[in-house]
Amino acid sequence: MSDDENAVRFGILGCANISIKLCKAINKAPNSKLHAIASRSVEKAESFATEHNLPKTVKIYGNYESLLEDDEVDAVYIPLPTGLHVTWAVKAAERRKHVLLEKPAAMSVAELDRILEACEAHGMQFMDGTMWMHHPRTAKMKEALSDAQRFGQLKWIHSCLTYNPGPEFLKSSIRVKADLDGLGALGDCGWYCIRAILWAVDYELPKSVLAFPGAILNEEGVIISCASSMHWEDGRSATFHCSFLSHITFDLTVLGTKGCLRLHDFPLPFEDNLGYATFLESSELDYAKIQPGMWCPKPNEHVVETQFSQEVCMVMEFADLVQKVKRCEMKPQKTWPVFSRKTQLVLDAVKDSIHRGYQPVQIVS
Amino acid sequence: MSDDENAVRFGILGCANISIKLCKAINKAPNSKLHAIASRSVEKAESFATEHNLPKTVKIYGNYESLLEDDEVDAVYIPLPTGLHVTWAVKAAERRKHVLLEKPAAMSVAELDRILEACEAHGMQFMDGTMWMHHPRTAKMKEALSDAQRFGQLKWIHSCLTYNPGPEFLKSSIRVKADLDGLGALGDCGWYCIRAILWAVDYELPKSVLAFPGAILNEEGVIISCASSMHWEDGRSATFHCSFLSHITFDLTVLGTKGCLRLHDFPLPFEDNLGYATFLESSELDYAKIQPGMWCPKPNEHVVETQFSQEVCMVMEFADLVQKVKRCEMKPQKTWPVFSRKTQLVLDAVKDSIHRGYQPVQIVS
Repeated sequence: MSDDENAVRFGILGCANISIKLCKAINKAPNSKLHAIASRSVEKAESFATEHNLPKTVKIYGNYESLLEDDEVDAVYIPLPTGLHVTWAVKAAERRKHVLLEKPAAMSVAELDRILEACEAHGMQFMDGTMWMHHPRTAKMKEALSDAQRFGQLKWIHSCLTYNPGPEFLKSSIRVKADLDGLGALGDCGWYCIRAILWAVDYELPKSVLAFPGAILNEEGVIISCASSMHWEDGRSATFHCSFLSHITFDLTVLGTKGCLRLHDFPLPFEDNLGYATFLESSELDYAKIQPGMWCPKPNEHVVETQFSQEVCMVMEFADLVQKVKRCEMKPQKTWPVFSRKTQLVLDAVKDSIHRGYQPVQIVS
Repeated sequence: MSDDENAVRFGILGCANISIKLCKAINKAPNSKLHAIASRSVEKAESFATEHNLPKTVKIYGNYESLLEDDEVDAVYIPLPTGLHVTWAVKAAERRKHVLLEKPAAMSVAELDRILEACEAHGMQFMDGTMWMHHPRTAKMKEALSDAQRFGQLKWIHSCLTYNPGPEFLKSSIRVKADLDGLGALGDCGWYCIRAILWAVDYELPKSVLAFPGAILNEEGVIISCASSMHWEDGRSATFHCSFLSHITFDLTVLGTKGCLRLHDFPLPFEDNLGYATFLESSELDYAKIQPGMWCPKPNEHVVETQFSQEVCMVMEFADLVQKVKRCEMKPQKTWPVFSRKTQLVLDAVKDSIHRGYQPVQIVS
């Protein structure tokens, strides 16, 4: 935690598991400071603070409203269930708090638009909590995709993000409840896949999406497992699969005319705490260096060293933007809200395609 | 080449590039012997024999008919363009030659059925040339998928097989000509994907397939790039992508409730000539051995040592069956023809789905 009085003072709405990670990240980020946490009860907030050794200086609130009333809070991190995002993110913006919102950003684009409009109306920075976007590896991978000599033109993307939390989760987790994280696996896992695909195509929206037959929904209609394709006017395509029913996979493959980029841990590097991350890249240019006995070169493993973990990078980047807005050096930056909105647009379209019996859905921005 | 007089005497119909590989494989297989090659002209067959140092004892034929008339030929390997398979495989069976047929087996199930009926009527063994099926790694991977403790139940499969042979190929190769290899990328690449998916589910046919919008066909209507999903009654799904427009990828991911199997060289191991092959496997059971600093264990790399390359294994297995039939120990084995037919059925359905404007196509065996 910074002693710098210019450090962005964060409040956290909700004592979710992910909040622990963010407390640590805010603590590590040189431009940030944890100012307050709120839970639905003082007892819960206090026990969270004690359990995770939060400094005594951190204020404890027994409801979200009170934290938002605290004038010393510059920005809030909101890890509440998706169904509550629109209410609390809008309130936060109205109380002039910058908003770092856990993914999925909202239950729908309509809700997200209310949030983004509130942020814009009050001059507040918005960013969603898709942490891997901020990992230095992500920028290195983008460089690889942008190398026309090695990679050529992008043609096809595939992403698969699954995990198997087991029967108790499927029965009672907030992540499978219609009124809480009502987007289910599409929101929890598919958000990452869609974002990764959009990231790979420089956020150009597909013209259409088509969910695959066989999506699995629970009794409340929440998506437990689904898959979809995405299609661009120029022939590029992508597919993704997200599920709460399969072993953990974090796959991303981006395929170009001359090269391929691939990794199996895109939202969180296997070696996250070891100070580095890797990705695989191959190119037809490497055919010149085929070793004896091999018909095709194995992909190159690129190693990216990291000073900070991706959540610290995210907090630093968000706080940097907030500081600039506070100093009136700039208006809230628009790029991050646009990324969120495009991700949500595609996510909505996939959900729509499932509900329409797996019909193609056009994307209209 | 075997000196054993019981060795199966092979004739090869056509001097395609792949024939070189098979000449070498027949030479290495202890139970096989290259007896004759045929091309459409004696000159071409002779120059092939000279260029590839075939033994002087190998007979040279200037047309396919003559090779089939040679009573000393036990079995033929047919690497001709797909459009010619039905004609020459049927003729071969009628002349009482066992048939090792390059993939894709035929232009359609109807054609393949004519071939299989001819083989059955004349008591001839049939096998298609999908070499990776015979690699010892394939059996080891099947063991991994069958380990219910580590892998759980199969849920999802993805395969991607692409290569980018360039504009000259796309203009003039037989692989993009409607009357030659008229199934294009679906036949050349998709065949492997479909086979791998069927292999993973123990050859249980899906109830339906659905090709994705955006397949690319050339002026002759030959598929250059396409993708499809496959769906089973019990909720298992698969997707695959095959293309002549992207960098080389040979991906297979098989996802279960508890584990995942993955490789990037399934039709031909990177280390094919080095005497081993690898695959990646992970399981939730490995969470017990997470190393410090990692949140999730990296997949286990399994190494499978090989005595023979996969094409030699294929020739040996085929020749072994032929010998048993010749010795009247058994009738031609049915498993391999059934695998071919199921692969072709799904391939036909994908083509059908594309031609029907990406409608779901039910699989009726």
